[in-house]
Order: sequence, then structure tokens, then C-alpha cells
Amino acid sequence: MPVSYILAKGAAMHMENFRFLSSTQIIFGRGSHHEVGPETGKYSRKVLLHYGGGSIKKSGLFDQVTASLQEAGVEYVELGGVAPNPRLSLVYKGIELCRKEGINFVLAVGGGSVIDSAKAIALGVPYQGDVWDFFSGKAEAQTSLPVGAIPTIAAAGSEASWSCVITNEDGWLKRSYNNNINRPVFAILNPELTFTLPPYQTACGAMDILAHVFERYFTNTPHVDLTDRLGEAVMKTVIKHTPVVLREPENYDARAEIMWAGTLAHNDLVGTGRIGDWATHILEHELSGMYDVAHGAGLAALFPAWMTYVYRHDVYRFAQFAVRVWDVEPDFRHPEEIALAGIARLRQFIRSIGLPVSLAELKIGREKFDELVAKCRMPNDDTLGKFVRLTRDDLRRILELAAE
Amino acid sequence: MPVSYILAKGAAMHMENFRFLSSTQIIFGRGSHHEVGPETGKYSRKVLLHYGGGSIKKSGLFDQVTASLQEAGVEYVELGGVAPNPRLSLVYKGIELCRKEGINFVLAVGGGSVIDSAKAIALGVPYQGDVWDFFSGKAEAQTSLPVGAIPTIAAAGSEASWSCVITNEDGWLKRSYNNNINRPVFAILNPELTFTLPPYQTACGAMDILAHVFERYFTNTPHVDLTDRLGEAVMKTVIKHTPVVLREPENYDARAEIMWAGTLAHNDLVGTGRIGDWATHILEHELSGMYDVAHGAGLAALFPAWMTYVYRHDVYRFAQFAVRVWDVEPDFRHPEEIALAGIARLRQFIRSIGLPVSLAELKIGREKFDELVAKCRMPNDDTLGKFVRLTRDDLRRILELAAE
Repeated sequence: MPVSYILAKGAAMHMENFRFLSSTQIIFGRGSHHEVGPETGKYSRKVLLHYGGGSIKKSGLFDQVTASLQEAGVEYVELGGVAPNPRLSLVYKGIELCRKEGINFVLAVGGGSVIDSAKAIALGVPYQGDVWDFFSGKAEAQTSLPVGAIPTIAAAGSEASWSCVITNEDGWLKRSYNNNINRPVFAILNPELTFTLPPYQTACGAMDILAHVFERYFTNTPHVDLTDRLGEAVMKTVIKHTPVVLREPENYDARAEIMWAGTLAHNDLVGTGRIGDWATHILEHELSGMYDVAHGAGLAALFPAWMTYVYRHDVYRFAQFAVRVWDVEPDFRHPEEIALAGIARLRQFIRSIGLPVSLAELKIGREKFDELVAKCRMPNDDTLGKFVRLTRDDLRRILELAAE
Repeated sequence: MPVSYILAKGAAMHMENFRFLSSTQIIFGRGSHHEVGPETGKYSRKVLLHYGGGSIKKSGLFDQVTASLQEAGVEYVELGGVAPNPRLSLVYKGIELCRKEGINFVLAVGGGSVIDSAKAIALGVPYQGDVWDFFSGKAEAQTSLPVGAIPTIAAAGSEASWSCVITNEDGWLKRSYNNNINRPVFAILNPELTFTLPPYQTACGAMDILAHVFERYFTNTPHVDLTDRLGEAVMKTVIKHTPVVLREPENYDARAEIMWAGTLAHNDLVGTGRIGDWATHILEHELSGMYDVAHGAGLAALFPAWMTYVYRHDVYRFAQFAVRVWDVEPDFRHPEEIALAGIARLRQFIRSIGLPVSLAELKIGREKFDELVAKCRMPNDDTLGKFVRLTRDDLRRILELAAE
């Protein structure tokens, strides 16, 4: 297989200098969502209660959250209807609502989409211009409303992350905006809330968590032993416990391991001092923007292909991944075989948890590959990714590898 | 060997509920101490600059820190002289000085003792009563001055921890006070600042870091896979890189790994959702209070003895420790042998980095064992430790095991 990617030049000799503050108060455990009232009351007396398709009403969570708010003397205004791949139009609506109602806090109850939508609303309320400016790179946010999060799925890690991903229906552009002010002031993590999550969404969440570590794990930054091992800790936890929760959806212990792993996978602890890649995420954003597939499923189809395409760039790193994360027996004479064995085990794992390992399984054919590649944002001198700088030609080949 | 300890009753069935917020802004890397001026300026225009024996003046660090403060328009008042096992009398002096000078921020430049002394001063300034009230358990602190930290040794993890340990010369009581308001607002971690640290102190620091994980790792809380692995990540990093820095004191990469490990070992990330033990720390506090030995050296002499005494309480956990942390080959038919092999490797490691594995090596004989045991604080129904609840009789036996 010909590889046309450009090797990183002027690579760092040491761990990168970094700043790190995960400023989100974590409130973890059984029954913890009952603490939402007093916790929110520290910041606000009137909040926007933001949620998705209404499953929180059926489950009773909505009533429990609002009861806790009322008991703490916190008024709320509802805004539901957040869809997967959350949309700008609803963000605009939320901003307007907050302004009209004099709301100064956004409480997100739901999945990563709900939390991201809440973050975007919180960014927009105090901003004079169009909130899309932040996502299009036209402006940097100086302030935002505080956000609180009660995730109902272990996946995106948005509850403690600096990232926010919104889809603009005008052109179906899916864009992210990363800023430390996006971090929620608190995240209430109750593993029980994920008991009713169907197997497919549970698996998609697990894949999303793994992918957040992958993006950071595959780096050219040398001398990052500790963060390698922290990332491996998160990956091994997800790999061990995902099959358990698929078998036993109400296994608190396994749900708890995955939930805490999901938060730590994306609050940037495992990225401290290292430069991540993020090509696969950006490519997947285009994919799920065009096809509206679940983010985790798109990542499942793309990541093994990306790995297969780039592993020669650092066979030793991929061999380490195979040995430490996937328990492949080391063979120092044949590191390439070991590296490939690791990628093969990832593929087997993805299949075993019921996710697609190809785009064909997602009913995505080759006919739109050119459009997808043409549309893809290429932030670094018309290349994508930092571990390996991919050209559009490389992206096309990765899609080919992912096709079937 | 007879074991008289009381087994834990009513042990938890699941991971513990927890709250976690490591609120310290981490500023990590080469040259990062030059950021102290602007960072401090966010909080204060007049600070107490707190340090130890004056080595920071010889090294030039003092001049660089004060230059950065001056450039940022931050005035400072000096208070040096913090000794290892920092003393209450100097804390009182610092409190008085802050009040007299109208100081509202304490900047600690030095080792864990300096940072702890700074935390105690920060607690005392806004408090009407005697600051020792917090350490003696008479009062809970409601507020404190903000503290900034520039550690010059990777060890205590005080730069981002909630703990503070002070020695009261009146009775030579060494006591700790844990409260989230003790966490510094920022920690500037520059591994270069640890280049000049002598081998013995470097090794003591490594032992202290390991001990902070040990205290959390040995727990009765079940279903703590992720935090087990995070702790193992920290331990393996220290075990790998300590021999490197002893050989090459100016190896930036290895110093950096150990420094970040030191912070993460004690900001309580690796303790989330689990109940730690802490018997060995409390016993060592009495020891170093009485004998003025280095904390890390005391821990080195005591921990293998504690492990040998208690491993039967949970052979599987000690076997896991042996296999995952010390690379002992698993042997499922003989878990006890595996557990003991892990403890033996810890002992070998301690010896290999030049630390004592017995109290005799610290010139501490049996003659004061009774006094030590009698003096020891026994917080839980006259027992010490939560993994295993040790009686005074157990402590005596552990000291015997540590004696030679």
C-alpha cells in the first residue's frame, strides 16, 4: 500500500509545556442527580433546562431534576428538542429565550449533544455578534454563562471538556469550538441514569470514549510515559467493561467504570504535555454531518482504517498500543506484526460490541467519497491531523480502506 | 506470624460516591516559573513570598521569581526559614506578618514543607482563633487566602493537594488538616528546578509519591478498576524514571515524568470513589516528628513492613500489585507467593535508590517503639487505618517488622 503522507518536521524533543485545569466539579454516584438543586442554586435562581427528545420525561428524570430545583428555590424555563448532531437553529432559539427570560445559567440533562447545545447557548447569550462566529473561527469568546451537566450517556465527555460541536444547517457544516470557558461548572455523574441506554448507543458511547484517547495517544511528542499509561488505563477500563454492560445493562459497577472513564478520556488529563492527532474526528464530523450516522459508529468505521493507513509512521507506538492495551504478546523481532495485531484486535472488539467496522455497514457507499473529501476542513496547510499530516489524497485512501 | 487486626465490617458493595475537583491551575514545563508574576497578579498586588533554607537564593530562582513579580507590579514581603517538618511557630510569624502588611496572597517557593507552611499561614490570616484549631480538630476553616506554589522537589504533591501537615513544637505533634480550600490556586511545575536536588532527597521524593498511591491503592472498596489502573500508571512511571534521574540528575524528560506523577499521586484523582488506608502515613508522621528523619525515608522503612503485616487481608489485591506494578509473573495457584514477591520487589527497589528498608538504617532502635505507639493518633475507635484497622498492638508488631 503506497503511503503519501508528509512526515512531521521539526518534531519536539521533549514533552510539551502545558496548562491544565479541569475546572468542573464532579459529583459522582448513585442518586447524585438529586444534588442538582442545591448545586445549581450556588450560581443562579433562574435557569434554562435544556434536554433532548423527551426520554428524560418518560424515565422520570425530568421530574426528579425539577423537583430538586424547585426545592432549592431555582426557577426553570424548559427547552427540549436537541437532536443528535445538535443544530445551530435551536442554539439561536435558546439564546433568545435566555435573553428574554433573564436567564443566567444553562442546565443540560441528556447526552453529549444536549450538553454541547447548552454550551453554545451559554456562549451566545453574552455575545453581541452571531454565536457561529466562534465555530467559524471569526471570534474568540471572552465570557459565557455557567453551564451544569447531567449526562445520561457515557460517551462524549462533554460534561467536563472544553469542546463544543454544533451543526449549522446552512450547508450542514459540523464545527467544533474549543475553549476552557466551555467547561461546565459542575457535572453530575450518576451511572444509574445510563441503565436504560440501548446496546447500540452504549457501544457507540464506548467507541467515542476510546476514540478520545486514541486521538491523544497517537502523538509525535516523545517522553510522555505517564500520559501514555493514563490513557491506557482509560482504554483498558472501557475494553473490559463494555461487554459487561451489553450483557447486563443494569450492572452499576461496570456502568460506573465506563462513566468515569468517559469523563477522564476527554477532560484532557490524558492529553497533557502532548499534541494529539484529531484527523479521524474531523473526518467523522463531515461524515456524520452528511449522513447523520451516530458519531461513535462513524468513528468505529473510520479508526481501524486510519490506523492501518498510518501505523508505519511509528510502528513502535502502535506495537506498544497492541501489547499494553490489547494484550498482544510482544515480539521484538517483528514489531510491525505486533502493531497490526493490535489494530486487528480493535476491529474484533468493535465487531463484538455490535458496531460497524466499515462504511458499507453504515450504508455509506463510495459515491460520495469525493464530496466528503472535498468538504473536509484541512486546518494545517491543507493537511489534516498532527500525528500524520494527511492530504486530501490520503483521506480518499483512508475512506477506501474503510469502505468494506 | 500472628495477625491480630480487626477485619473491616459492613464493607461497601460498590465504588463510593464522590466529589472531585482539582481546582489548581497547573502550569507545567521548562521556564514556566517566569509566568509567576502575571499569574500571581490575577489575585493580588502584595504577597508573602515564603521559602525555606535559602537554597533558592543560591540557585538564582529567588531573583527570577522576584523579577517576574516586580515586572507584573506585584509587591512582595519575604519570609524564609521553613524547616523540614514545618513548624507552627513560623506559621504564627507568617500570619502576623500578613496581617501587619495587608497581604492577601501567599506564594510558596520550595519543597512540600514550604507549601504546607504557606497553606497554614493562608488558613490563619482570616481566622479569628488559633490556626492550630484546624489541626487539632477543634474547628473547620471557612475561608483562606489564595496560595500559589512553585515546588522545587517532586514529592509531597502539596502543590495541588487538599492536605497540609504542620508540627507543633509544643509536644512535637505533627498533624494534618485536609480541606479543599487548602488547594493552591496555581502550581508552577518546572522540572528544571529539580535538577540540583541531591540523590537522597530525589529518592525520598520518589518514595513519598509512591506512598501517596499506596495509601489509596490498598482499599476495601470493590469495583475500582479505573482508579486502580490510574494509580498503577503513576507507580510504574515513578519506578521507571527514578533510577534514571539518580544516574542523570539533569535528564529533563525523566524529571518531568516524576514531577507530573507527584502532582497526580496526591491531588486525589487516584483516590476518587475509594477509601484509602493512611495508617502508614500517620505512623510515619509520629516517627518523623520524634526523630526528624525525612518523610520519604520514614515511609521507605515502614511501608514494606506494613505490607508484610497486612497482605493476608487481601492477597488478591497484593497479587495484582505484584503483577501489574512490579511485573511479577502471575501464578494463580500460588497468589500468596506472588503477593510476597511484589513486596520483595518494592524492598529491592527502595534499596536500589539508596533508601533505608529498616528503622535500624535510620538509627532508630527499639527503645522508643513503645513511646511511638503510645503517641500515635488512632482516629477510628482507637484503631488506625481503613484497609486494615490496626490496634496499637498491631503497630508495635509492624515496627518490629520494620526494625531491622
